[in-house]
Formats: sequence, structure tokens, C-alpha cells
Amino acid sequence: MINKLVQKIKGTGASIVAGLDPMLSYIPESILKKAFAEYGETLEGAAEAIWQFNKEIIDNICDLIPAVKPQIAMYEQFGVEGLKAFQKTVNYCKEKDLVVIGDVKRGDIGSTSAAYATAHLGKVTVGEKRLSAFDEDFATVNPYLGSDGVKPFVEVCKKEKKGIFVLVKTSNPSSGEFQDRLINGRPLYEYVGEKVDEWGKECMGDSYSYVGAVVGATYPEMGKILRKIMPKAYILVPGYGAQGGKGADLVHFFNEDGLGAIVNSSRGIIAAWQQEKYAKFGAEHFGEASRAAVLDMREDIAQALESR
Amino acid sequence: MINKLVQKIKGTGASIVAGLDPMLSYIPESILKKAFAEYGETLEGAAEAIWQFNKEIIDNICDLIPAVKPQIAMYEQFGVEGLKAFQKTVNYCKEKDLVVIGDVKRGDIGSTSAAYATAHLGKVTVGEKRLSAFDEDFATVNPYLGSDGVKPFVEVCKKEKKGIFVLVKTSNPSSGEFQDRLINGRPLYEYVGEKVDEWGKECMGDSYSYVGAVVGATYPEMGKILRKIMPKAYILVPGYGAQGGKGADLVHFFNEDGLGAIVNSSRGIIAAWQQEKYAKFGAEHFGEASRAAVLDMREDIAQALESR
Repeated sequence: MINKLVQKIKGTGASIVAGLDPMLSYIPESILKKAFAEYGETLEGAAEAIWQFNKEIIDNICDLIPAVKPQIAMYEQFGVEGLKAFQKTVNYCKEKDLVVIGDVKRGDIGSTSAAYATAHLGKVTVGEKRLSAFDEDFATVNPYLGSDGVKPFVEVCKKEKKGIFVLVKTSNPSSGEFQDRLINGRPLYEYVGEKVDEWGKECMGDSYSYVGAVVGATYPEMGKILRKIMPKAYILVPGYGAQGGKGADLVHFFNEDGLGAIVNSSRGIIAAWQQEKYAKFGAEHFGEASRAAVLDMREDIAQALESR
Repeated sequence: MINKLVQKIKGTGASIVAGLDPMLSYIPESILKKAFAEYGETLEGAAEAIWQFNKEIIDNICDLIPAVKPQIAMYEQFGVEGLKAFQKTVNYCKEKDLVVIGDVKRGDIGSTSAAYATAHLGKVTVGEKRLSAFDEDFATVNPYLGSDGVKPFVEVCKKEKKGIFVLVKTSNPSSGEFQDRLINGRPLYEYVGEKVDEWGKECMGDSYSYVGAVVGATYPEMGKILRKIMPKAYILVPGYGAQGGKGADLVHFFNEDGLGAIVNSSRGIIAAWQQEKYAKFGAEHFGEASRAAVLDMREDIAQALESR
């Protein structure tokens, strides 16, 4: 799957992943009204609105980008109904030949981590059958529990030719509270980065590993160091746009070949119609506003890479 | 909810939480056959088997214990159908007046962590309505992302009078890989413990805080130190039984008053019928085997506390 991701990035010329993290406040009134008219102000109604919103955006941007990253928390808050919308979104994106990164940040120990890996990347045995549950292409993984927590994901990746992105240095302001703690003069995230490199050696694609890393755009200097520590890891970079990361900050996450990083934008793309810059599209054409935002982001990253 | 947990622990005389982490291999053939006959060898069939299995165990042990801890990964691997069984299990346990600890190990940043907190402990706004999704009483939380990741859970806990258990030192063999790293001569997990104490001060129940901690039974010496660092945190202790933790190891996790810790056993209780010790019950009476295992565990912990 990492080979497919790289190939699609080359094909689209866009190292961009669209974060499908819908909040009800991003959804135009007309969609909400229709969904509530059909299902009431219920979890089902909310899930229907989210699904219709996602579908319109996907239809408008799927030819421009290699991948999407649905954030499962935004669906999980609507319970089982929300997770049905998550499932539909994943399936629809795969139909559109998009690479799907499930932003699930799971991580547990032993058989429990194996169950999460099965849920999101693998197949579960039921009687004589082998069945898929959510079946994303990649998943994000929390490393706090150590190798016991990550290895079961690596095993499933090998078997299914899928991939993971391990949280190394997250984009939020307080990520340093634990991640930056100095151990023998080096921050914890560097040790996690070394492990990512180690885990990744077990499962290499053509030029990058099945095991990638998450490093926030908000910490470009750290990205520079981590790029060297994990040369074969694709870096998933959140924090661009709404969180404050700029195009110029991103160059350190890429390798010389212009590959090695994929930059996420969520609100900046899916709620573009609410920004002044794209207000001309109006609520009715929110999908086109998202398309314009993707084109602008592609340009911003291309310029930053050219001028380095 | 921490007050209810303490009160129920006193009432039952059992500092025990039963881990409802069903694997299909724990479920007697007769239940599987019936579920597959009705729903086929499908995700729905698996979910039905899990639900029937859980229900029988809950019926057999609910008067003996204060709390249950369903591990969501074991349900999530069966997709939406599995999560319906999770939901049914949570609801049924609450009907039986058990405190429900959702072992979800979620953790993200800002609005995403808030969405997870909403999913498991809070209420989500849909139009004019405020609706619950999974609605457990407690949830486990991963601290790797720092305060930004944990605080949204604390806010929901305050509002809903619910609680969390933050992963501090997990029970698995490789937990030390990152958690034991020395920072100025002290391991990372102690810093996390200090944060748990700090977060917990914001939301105190009568004698313990809404913010508890997870510390593995497999590391009793570390438990002793963490007990002092977080005097007001209830400690959820996994790793007893199948993972190797013994009754005698547990004493350090408790305070002088015999409170302050709740010990989890999953396989040891729910798959008791497969152990030689409880084989006499047979597959048909697996619920009674679970009951016997709970009684033995209660005795084991009581003896350990008495002889300290």
C-alpha cells in the first residue's frame, strides 16, 4: 500500500491528504435540514448529514489528491450510527481509488493491539470465514505501550500489505510535555523515531517502509532531525493550515526527491466554504470551495519545495 | 461516579473489575453454533455469540463485583456489528448497576480528544437535542499527547461526574521501552503520575479523584512509588492472573484503608471454564465457572491484604 501511496502522490503531484474530520458545524444548513427531516434530530440523522457532506467533498476532490484521512473520533461521538458513516466513507473513498488512512490512534498490548490491527487493517476469523471490519489502507498508532503495542500492527501490515503511521511528535502545543523530555540529552520523540526506523526495516516497500510516522508541521526543526533518523519512513504531517503550520515549514519533512511526506489538512479543506477566502462559492457549493482549497494548498507546497 | 465505585467496592468487599474481553475461542461451541445458525458465519453472527456469552457471565457475577471493563478492541474487530454488541454489553451492565469502565485507551488532541470524551463519557449536540453515544462511566486514556489530549476528558468528567484512568505504567513486558526512560534520573512514568495527580486535583470526589491511573500488577515496586505520587488516584491494575501478577504483588497498589486500587482480571474470569481448575463446571456452565473464579480472586486479594 505504501507503493500505491507513493505512486498516487507522483500521479497527482500532490503530497496532500484531506482530513475527513466532519463537525456538524461545518455542514451547510440545507444538508442538516434534509437529514433531520428524514431521521429526526438523532444520532442517525447526524450520521446521515456527515455522510452526505463527505460524499460531496470526496466527489469534488478525489481526482486531485492521493489520500484521505478520516478521523474516527468525529464519527465515534455519534456511536454506532456514526461508525456506520465512517464505514461508508472508507468504502466510498476506496471505490474512488483513494488511499484511506484511518486516523484511529489505537494502541494497546499483545492480543488487544492485534484486535485493533484486525479491526482496521486485517481480517477476523469467524467460523470458516475470514472477514474484514473497517478495512482502511493505513492506520495511525500510539506508541506509548512500546513494541508489544506496535508489533501486532506490523504483523498485520506485512500480511495484508498495508501500513501504519506511528505518533512520534504530535502537532499540538502540549505535545512536548512527555514527547520532548530529555533522556541522556535527547528527547523521547527521537527514541520513538529510532524505533519507527527499526520496525520499518522489517517491511519495506519499493522505496519507503510500510511503517511511517506522524510529525507535526508545527515543529519543523524537529521534523528536520526526524527526517534523518527515519529516512525510509513516510511522514504524515498534521498541523498545516488551521493549526498554524505554513508551506515553508514543510520542506524539512520531505526528502531530496520531493517525496517522503504527506501533509494533512482537515478544516482547511472540508470547511473551506466558511473561510472568507472561499466565501464566493457559498454554502451550496461547499464542495467546489474544498476543491479550490486543495488546489491552493498544492500550489503552496510546490512553491515551498521549489524555493528550498 | 468515583464515589459510586468506592461505595460499590465497600459493598461487595471486592476490589475486582471483570474484564469483558471476549475472544471467539473463549465461547462454548453451543453458543457459537446457535449464533451462526441464526446469522451465518458473519460479523453479525460473531457479535451475537459475544453478546450471549457476555450476558451469561454478567448474570452470574454481577452481585459479586463492583465493576466491569469491556475492552472495545475485542468488539471493534467485528466492525459496526461488534460495536453494537459493545453497546448492548455496556447498557446491560448499567442495568445491573455495575460501574462500567470502557477500556478504550483513546487519546488525541483538542477537539478530537473532546470528540472521544463525548463518545464514551459525554453527550453530543444534534440540533436541539443532547444525545449519548456509548455512555460508559469511566474510560481509559492514553497520555502520550500531553495535557491537550487529557484535559478534554477531564472537562467532560467534571460535567458528567464521570471518570478516567490514565495509562501510567502498563502491564506488558515492553512497557519500559518508553515509559521507563530516565529523565533527570527519574522514569517517564513518574512524570506522568505527577500529571495524573495534578489533573485529578481539579475534580475530587469524596475521598478519591475522578482521574485515576492504570499501573500494571506486573510491576509492584513501581506501583509502590506511584501509589505515593498519586495518593488520591484510584489505580486500575491490569496484569493479574493470566499475565503473571499475583495477589501478593497487589498490596502496594492499595492504601492503608484497603481502598485505592481495583484489580482487573479478564481471561481468568471470563474463560475460567477452560482452566483445569474449573473444568468440573463444563462448557455448559461456563457462567458458574466465572463466578467461582471471582470468588477465588476475592479471597486471594483479601488474604494478601490481611497478611501485609
